Amino acid sequence: MTHGGNLFEIQRQYGVDRNGLLDYSANINPLGVPNSLRKIMMEAMDDLVNYPDIHYTDLKNAIGEKYKVTVDNIYVGNGGVQVIFDFINAVKPEKSLVVYPTFVEYERALKAVGSEIKTYLLNEDNDFKLHIDELINEIDETLDMVVLCNPNNPTGTLIEREFFEKLLIKCQEKEVFLMVDEAFMDFVHEGEEKTLLTLSEKYEYLMVTRSFTKFYGIPGLRLGFGVCCHIKIKQKLTQLAIPWTVNTFASYFGKVLLTDQEYERKTLQWLREETPRFVNELEKTGLFKVYQPSVNYILMKLLPKNIEVNQLREKLIQEGVLIRDCSNFKGLSNRFIRIAIKDTGSNQQLLDAINKVIVGLDNSL
Amino acid sequence: MTHGGNLFEIQRQYGVDRNGLLDYSANINPLGVPNSLRKIMMEAMDDLVNYPDIHYTDLKNAIGEKYKVTVDNIYVGNGGVQVIFDFINAVKPEKSLVVYPTFVEYERALKAVGSEIKTYLLNEDNDFKLHIDELINEIDETLDMVVLCNPNNPTGTLIEREFFEKLLIKCQEKEVFLMVDEAFMDFVHEGEEKTLLTLSEKYEYLMVTRSFTKFYGIPGLRLGFGVCCHIKIKQKLTQLAIPWTVNTFASYFGKVLLTDQEYERKTLQWLREETPRFVNELEKTGLFKVYQPSVNYILMKLLPKNIEVNQLREKLIQEGVLIRDCSNFKGLSNRFIRIAIKDTGSNQQLLDAINKVIVGLDNSL
Repeated sequence: MTHGGNLFEIQRQYGVDRNGLLDYSANINPLGVPNSLRKIMMEAMDDLVNYPDIHYTDLKNAIGEKYKVTVDNIYVGNGGVQVIFDFINAVKPEKSLVVYPTFVEYERALKAVGSEIKTYLLNEDNDFKLHIDELINEIDETLDMVVLCNPNNPTGTLIEREFFEKLLIKCQEKEVFLMVDEAFMDFVHEGEEKTLLTLSEKYEYLMVTRSFTKFYGIPGLRLGFGVCCHIKIKQKLTQLAIPWTVNTFASYFGKVLLTDQEYERKTLQWLREETPRFVNELEKTGLFKVYQPSVNYILMKLLPKNIEVNQLREKLIQEGVLIRDCSNFKGLSNRFIRIAIKDTGSNQQLLDAINKVIVGLDNSL
Repeated sequence: MTHGGNLFEIQRQYGVDRNGLLDYSANINPLGVPNSLRKIMMEAMDDLVNYPDIHYTDLKNAIGEKYKVTVDNIYVGNGGVQVIFDFINAVKPEKSLVVYPTFVEYERALKAVGSEIKTYLLNEDNDFKLHIDELINEIDETLDMVVLCNPNNPTGTLIEREFFEKLLIKCQEKEVFLMVDEAFMDFVHEGEEKTLLTLSEKYEYLMVTRSFTKFYGIPGLRLGFGVCCHIKIKQKLTQLAIPWTVNTFASYFGKVLLTDQEYERKTLQWLREETPRFVNELEKTGLFKVYQPSVNYILMKLLPKNIEVNQLREKLIQEGVLIRDCSNFKGLSNRFIRIAIKDTGSNQQLLDAINKVIVGLDNSL
């Protein structure tokens, strides 16, 4: 499977009820759909008879206020992934560079516009941390675009903002667009200081994309945005845009952004408390190398050589838990898995299931 | 304005409350959001925490059953307009022909892929009816794609299915894709006999697109589909597709399609009764040439030479009614307007507003 969170497919393939599955394969806030959003959706049901605002003015104003970016540079889309496709389509790079392992849709979007793709691999020996100077050395005038994810999916590593400045200056100099996908930045401790959003007016070759899917627990609603101040790209986006891509419910999401600080506070509190506890418990099993996360998911390497990741995954499905087998990420071997961080109770269920399954697999050998 | 139904823009521009406006500029079923859909959406709110089914299997099965098409040839999208863009992107025509006057997004989508566009103009002298033999004569191997809308928007004319067979054979022979947008076909009397959907397995160069927006009163939900059996196009669509384009609520729309015959019946009954009555009343004003509609909207030509369409439109906004000025449709002069057909009460309000405004405009001259 290309993506995590594919519960319908799991249900069809394994004959298990998708509602009974604990989904650790998608990195969604366990606090669920905000109540403030439910209220808005209830009120907006009658409004489905009207087309949404084709300019999404209220939504863009709210995003601008919340993230301190100029409204005129904001582009909204049907999920962060549509913004990624549309940004890449607007640039139409002939040659691009992608930092791997990472979210597979950058490569798909680049191939869709016929781009040649240069691979830059993060090194396992360096815990998949980026050497920014090494990346800068790879950038020359033959490139049109560089794509990376920060914090990176699936590794969970974060590049600090100070390291980006040199990279951005090089990109500006060589006229190479740098697209940084910050789909998980809302989860980062002091993320408002780490995001590149506020640099988007200083560097015209910078494109930043964001998603509301993960932090606000709404992958089913479809909403994301991006920012870019490059005038020609903005014109291109307007020219190529499919109308009414954001549905009515999602178009009112600005109200949640501006008013639901409680949801935000609770989410960050849960994550700050649960992450070290859960990481510690996972390490204590002795089964995994656990990569320290900056976000709400954890990359792990399965250590026992006699157990295969796909075996572990299949057995866990039988226990009602779905994890992400990372073998289809370019740059990761078939020893890696990714799991979400959920509430303490669920996380304990995952730990119990892992212990049970591993004992079974060990005994069967 | 490029499109009708742009209530948010009207509110910003004219300072009128959009909720107080009778919107005759968008062609939406006045029965509003089906109650069956409301129930589904209430139940699905918790499900927003999950990604929608990336393959939309249940939705496609329902569409296949309802419209009698092979599930494997169905493509679903975030509104009919996304299906149109994606079909055109999959064909990537170098040269195309569009039958005008028509919905403006075909031209935008064709320009987005860099297609040269040949214009085929329907003739006012022939009440904008298509001479199918004349169109067939225009088709040769230099073309890659022909796009037309049936029933046509904004003219409301319908091409009978028997006339398409010759056109389809010619397209097949010359390897030219024919995309027929049937966004309003559900409104047509015995539309299940007029649609080309069921021909989509016989002719591999045929692409048919549909929308649920208009008939089911849900432009805010975003859902449409298309069919095509051409293997390379289907592969291209899979390869280029942005994941999760249909949101969770829309992904459950299949249940409405298969169970809510009552909504369908009531809609068709209203339209059969109201159309002749409303057309008759409009003709009685003596102000318009009224083009006989096959659907839920009416093209009209304003007859008094001393009144401009944009004057009429602006005055009607002050009366709380929004009509569609058709002057931005290629092939229509600035004498044309399009109005939706609504319930009898609303239609009477429109007639009253027209009479009031026309008297005012006449006296001011």
